[in-house]
Amino acid sequence: MSLKATKILKNTPSVIASAAVGGKKEHEGPMGDYFDKINDDPYFSLDTFEQGESQIQKQAVTYALRKAKLRQEDIDVLFGGDLLNQCTGTTYGVRDFEMPFLGIYGACSTMAEGLMLASLFVDGGVSDIAMAVTSSHFCTAERQYRFPLNYGGQRTPTSQWTATAGGALAVSAKTSPPYVRACTIGKIVDMGVTDANNMGAAMAPAAFSTISEFFTDTGLAPQDFDYIVTGDLGKVGSRILCELFERENISIRENHKDCGMMLYSFEEQDVHAGGSGCGCAASMLCGYFIPKLRAGELHNILFAATGALMSPTVNQQGESIPSISHLVWLSHEPDSLTPRSCGKEGC
Amino acid sequence: MSLKATKILKNTPSVIASAAVGGKKEHEGPMGDYFDKINDDPYFSLDTFEQGESQIQKQAVTYALRKAKLRQEDIDVLFGGDLLNQCTGTTYGVRDFEMPFLGIYGACSTMAEGLMLASLFVDGGVSDIAMAVTSSHFCTAERQYRFPLNYGGQRTPTSQWTATAGGALAVSAKTSPPYVRACTIGKIVDMGVTDANNMGAAMAPAAFSTISEFFTDTGLAPQDFDYIVTGDLGKVGSRILCELFERENISIRENHKDCGMMLYSFEEQDVHAGGSGCGCAASMLCGYFIPKLRAGELHNILFAATGALMSPTVNQQGESIPSISHLVWLSHEPDSLTPRSCGKEGC
Repeated sequence: MSLKATKILKNTPSVIASAAVGGKKEHEGPMGDYFDKINDDPYFSLDTFEQGESQIQKQAVTYALRKAKLRQEDIDVLFGGDLLNQCTGTTYGVRDFEMPFLGIYGACSTMAEGLMLASLFVDGGVSDIAMAVTSSHFCTAERQYRFPLNYGGQRTPTSQWTATAGGALAVSAKTSPPYVRACTIGKIVDMGVTDANNMGAAMAPAAFSTISEFFTDTGLAPQDFDYIVTGDLGKVGSRILCELFERENISIRENHKDCGMMLYSFEEQDVHAGGSGCGCAASMLCGYFIPKLRAGELHNILFAATGALMSPTVNQQGESIPSISHLVWLSHEPDSLTPRSCGKEGC
Repeated sequence: MSLKATKILKNTPSVIASAAVGGKKEHEGPMGDYFDKINDDPYFSLDTFEQGESQIQKQAVTYALRKAKLRQEDIDVLFGGDLLNQCTGTTYGVRDFEMPFLGIYGACSTMAEGLMLASLFVDGGVSDIAMAVTSSHFCTAERQYRFPLNYGGQRTPTSQWTATAGGALAVSAKTSPPYVRACTIGKIVDMGVTDANNMGAAMAPAAFSTISEFFTDTGLAPQDFDYIVTGDLGKVGSRILCELFERENISIRENHKDCGMMLYSFEEQDVHAGGSGCGCAASMLCGYFIPKLRAGELHNILFAATGALMSPTVNQQGESIPSISHLVWLSHEPDSLTPRSCGKEGC
């Protein structure tokens, strides 16, 4: 079955601004200099970790607006979501902005989904300026998905460290790099993994599915891109992804980057299999990759964030973990590389 | 501040099929004959209520596909979401379909958000055929938001009954009624209500905000529509909504319908303030309103579902309840009534 899930953007809209927010541990890691705003206090001077996470969202949107010299009333639509039950990190974080808001849920793939929707809205003339935002917070995620921090539970070697971080970006008509060239909407993939402490293994097949579909639909190849960026597969998931491609005689080892492998120092920061959370991929995209694409230090990347679409409730009921990956192609040029048309309008 | 959140659809796509799924109580109510599929067993012959809710999603999509004479591989994108933590009702319900999937979260406004996104994707040529699906389940919602059923908690007079129901629909290029004419993306509204047993009061101001914005943007008035349909405000929220309009010297009492007031019999079914849940508005739209629009029994309706964007965690931390309402204008004709242009492309 070959569904054409890849959309080639006719008007190649621009990401006109992006901002990355992080916490203390993210600041201390190798990517610490790429954040626009650092918060040393996990409570963000508020009463609860959840209120703290909402501050990440608020800060990310505020900094992105400021960098784009935009006011909140200039924004036609904001796409946002996060990992918390009912996406409250987002809804409480952005409720004061009075922007038209569409909530999205893609677990850790949320920034790819938001960037895709914002770009398609601008490309199709639905919106002039569209934004996307997401976040995660180590302390809210541990409480919700595993144990409260005070419990002191041991972490397995395959477990990942949820980033206290977030990112926001604004998309508008084509003016300056980076340009959004295409996107591939993911399908849910479930290979039967049931270990909630091994998200990388659950998510890698989803990344493989979507990235493969992009190459098939466009006729482009891994070597056409500076980097193929995944969201937060970590050590375990990244190894599986590379092996899945090698089974098809395709090598992505040379230019594969995983945000979960970039955010922290494995030697010094005790993060086991790497970073994770919506904010991991979002902060690396908004703080590191987009500025480098803008400056021309990078020319073409695929950003394929992945999400594990389970909840503790159904996982405890014995269910396996369905996953998804959404992909966006970002470019320094509006017309470098020529994707094969897939023969459909809007594609 | 007057943001133009209303989008007039240039190509007025068609809702080519819709299906409504319900449970035993929904079947016994006054709308029982409008469901495509009824399930008497809340477990759906499976092990858990959560698996049951996923069956609602699966059935709704399957019946909508069948009615449209479509195969799952014909669908370019499926928008779906629900009330469960991490939207697992949806992700486990649709994971076998292999459709490109975009998760959305709008609490009980989900069907309006999904219909809006599906319509905008088709209108802009991004997708040929787009679907939307959502569900709710009394037993999963009680366990997650209030108490496990076995606890036997008392319900307050303002509380609503979460529908065990769902709906799915498919949107394609303009062929036959009903047509999607316009939509208004909602903004988050928070009037400080903290009572999680009075969702209607929390959500009514959001419905007022979005419906008012639609009238302002288009120059149309309540009397232009057969019905102004809200999702699940129930008795309390519906009264507040009518009063909010009356303060502006606008009467909507004559043609206001609330799905939460329609689904059950107040006299015979002990539902206190009415029905609620994503599946309440979705099943009434897919099972009742869309067929009547198709047949020409109705000519123009506004469908404005509302969602309360809170979680038990933040509510127990003392937070108020932010809400949102998204609106879609559905019409038997592709060109009856002329909205004033709001002077923006795509609007």
